[in-house]
Amino acid sequence: MASVNKNYLNLKENYLFSDIARKIKKYSTDNPVEKIIKMGIGDVTLPLPLVAVKAMQDASQEMGDKNTFRGYGDEQGYIFLQNAIQNYYFSNSKVSIDLDEIFISDGAKSDIGNFSELFSNDNLIVIPDPVYPVYLDSNIMLGRDIRLVNGNKENFFLPLPSPDLKGDVIYLCSPNNPTGSVYSYEQLKIWVDYALNNNSIILFDSAYEAFISDNSLPRSIFQIENAKKCCVEFCSLSKTAGFTGTRCGYTIVPKELRLDGLSINNMWRRRQTTKYNGTSYIIQRGAQAIFSEEGIEQCRKNIDYYRKNAMVISDTLDEIGIWFTGGINSPYIWLECGRDSWDFFDFLLKKANVVGTPGSGFGKCGEGFFRLTAFNSYENTCIAMERIKKLFQ
Amino acid sequence: MASVNKNYLNLKENYLFSDIARKIKKYSTDNPVEKIIKMGIGDVTLPLPLVAVKAMQDASQEMGDKNTFRGYGDEQGYIFLQNAIQNYYFSNSKVSIDLDEIFISDGAKSDIGNFSELFSNDNLIVIPDPVYPVYLDSNIMLGRDIRLVNGNKENFFLPLPSPDLKGDVIYLCSPNNPTGSVYSYEQLKIWVDYALNNNSIILFDSAYEAFISDNSLPRSIFQIENAKKCCVEFCSLSKTAGFTGTRCGYTIVPKELRLDGLSINNMWRRRQTTKYNGTSYIIQRGAQAIFSEEGIEQCRKNIDYYRKNAMVISDTLDEIGIWFTGGINSPYIWLECGRDSWDFFDFLLKKANVVGTPGSGFGKCGEGFFRLTAFNSYENTCIAMERIKKLFQ
Repeated sequence: MASVNKNYLNLKENYLFSDIARKIKKYSTDNPVEKIIKMGIGDVTLPLPLVAVKAMQDASQEMGDKNTFRGYGDEQGYIFLQNAIQNYYFSNSKVSIDLDEIFISDGAKSDIGNFSELFSNDNLIVIPDPVYPVYLDSNIMLGRDIRLVNGNKENFFLPLPSPDLKGDVIYLCSPNNPTGSVYSYEQLKIWVDYALNNNSIILFDSAYEAFISDNSLPRSIFQIENAKKCCVEFCSLSKTAGFTGTRCGYTIVPKELRLDGLSINNMWRRRQTTKYNGTSYIIQRGAQAIFSEEGIEQCRKNIDYYRKNAMVISDTLDEIGIWFTGGINSPYIWLECGRDSWDFFDFLLKKANVVGTPGSGFGKCGEGFFRLTAFNSYENTCIAMERIKKLFQ
Repeated sequence: MASVNKNYLNLKENYLFSDIARKIKKYSTDNPVEKIIKMGIGDVTLPLPLVAVKAMQDASQEMGDKNTFRGYGDEQGYIFLQNAIQNYYFSNSKVSIDLDEIFISDGAKSDIGNFSELFSNDNLIVIPDPVYPVYLDSNIMLGRDIRLVNGNKENFFLPLPSPDLKGDVIYLCSPNNPTGSVYSYEQLKIWVDYALNNNSIILFDSAYEAFISDNSLPRSIFQIENAKKCCVEFCSLSKTAGFTGTRCGYTIVPKELRLDGLSINNMWRRRQTTKYNGTSYIIQRGAQAIFSEEGIEQCRKNIDYYRKNAMVISDTLDEIGIWFTGGINSPYIWLECGRDSWDFFDFLLKKANVVGTPGSGFGKCGEGFFRLTAFNSYENTCIAMERIKKLFQ
């Protein structure tokens, strides 16, 4: 008699975004004339760089010609894309990585969700709160013991390991989703040293690194000394290049990273060759174009657009004296709402017709906070901020 | 201190195809004038139907325009593709499935590899031998107890449950890889009845269904009465439509399928929303085109081409009196070589300059057998068969 994985019973259904959609729908039915501006969205809105469009069209053409058709590629990706990523990595963060340390995937979410499979069930998992729900849910599915480390106003939502922290596998995300906070070198070094001293592993989510504008902040965990001995880095083209619907990411697994005498790089390769068949050739060509000089330039323009929105939001909050993190090096602005975050959601929807995301949806420590994002249009962002300014002044 | 998943130590490194490549390389260096014909390849060679190429180019264009750009799609896929699959399914096998029973993915390998996560660790896994290595390896990684059921000449490599078989999760593949054998209705009904009587689940891999030419054979496990209560079906566009490098598949998880009071459909949806972010919009548009009238027609032409090759191989083996399965309803021909299958590999390479795959690479029961595939060109297939005919006559 077959039986299910009972750990699934411990998952909470995540109704956050469906609850938000329901509330918006009800409000707009009751108030059809109001223009609602959605700043809860965690998805990009600007189109793909044309250089990537052209590359994918050409690659599609190749697939229709018997002389250039491609069947199965390597599970870890094409060397042309690994080369492009290697060059980007070095120019972006001065970190050298080998080609066989780069694993191309259909997105960071898949790799982050699957990576914990490589560890034994008795590992203690450390996850910050508030947090991107994938870290938590993928480990609940595996029945792992989880220790939350608290982000709060005092630590600017950048928790560090306390002296008594026990942890084997540690998830970090910087620039952070949902708080927009970014760890400094010194702070990341504290985490890396902790991991080295405790034989722990850090799974580092750098999906938002392209939003860093302050050059004193680290763009890769591997900029920290000896991080290759204890860290894996998950990278995404979703926010960097607008690939949320196009799907491509990559994960860096250093060859120096060993546990119990085994190479984590080899283990991940074995996992991927067994349970993955590589990212579409067409999409990999699009991703390669993103890392060309022209592609990087086009992506930068898009990110600058979102950054300008983030600045409009940050300036408004500063002006009306609301405490927040993020915004400068991140598309997310995490503000203190000083009340129940769902109450604030309702308040903002009714009084300013602006939609954001209640912080409590990202964890217990998110209560009392609220996320706005920079992904709407500049015009809408300005209108929304004018409304909020009026409401608070 | 972090520790690894020790089950990985129980995996055998699979050197099958790298060993084959090494032997070919050595032979062709030593014998540079011989033309080697590769019939070991399990990958398609004909280009994509042009209707899919056009659809992907158009979709790429949409992604470059702010009015038609698409960000995140639903993890389980776009409704336009689910609709196309629903229609294809009904016209192909007269099986009705609901849209929310269709989960689009980047390929059957991913879904087959990941699906076992939904079951508890004390399930006994039943896997045929010889077998596609993913069933075995993905369950070894989870530390599961595995019972192999033997395929052999007596059962035409179509093993059925013996009266004393204990099994909770059962993997079946028909048309089979590597043997090319196809279960009849009556045989599949025996498996389905076994599963219903024992509260087992059948994970049915139908990646090769499009190669079935005998209309008396089932194209979907759901053609068997009550199969929706105990089966999941994994479908692929890889061999059907030449998508091995383009990447798209889909999995049918019936809503009637329940275990321990839980809906497996809901569990798989939860798994996918947590650890997957959907298949590329561009690729889903290509897949939609495959299921158009024109797409189906273009795919049929390609499959007919491979079928003609399979017939050339089958006719040759018949003529020289070699026992085999497959070939008629499958791109694979599984022949009895009557000796150690690696010896036969060397023999065929040296005496006929033809490359195939030793059966022992697919499991213990594959020893003494050998796989040829129909994916080379018609011209090469004919030359290879002429050489084999000479060798055996």
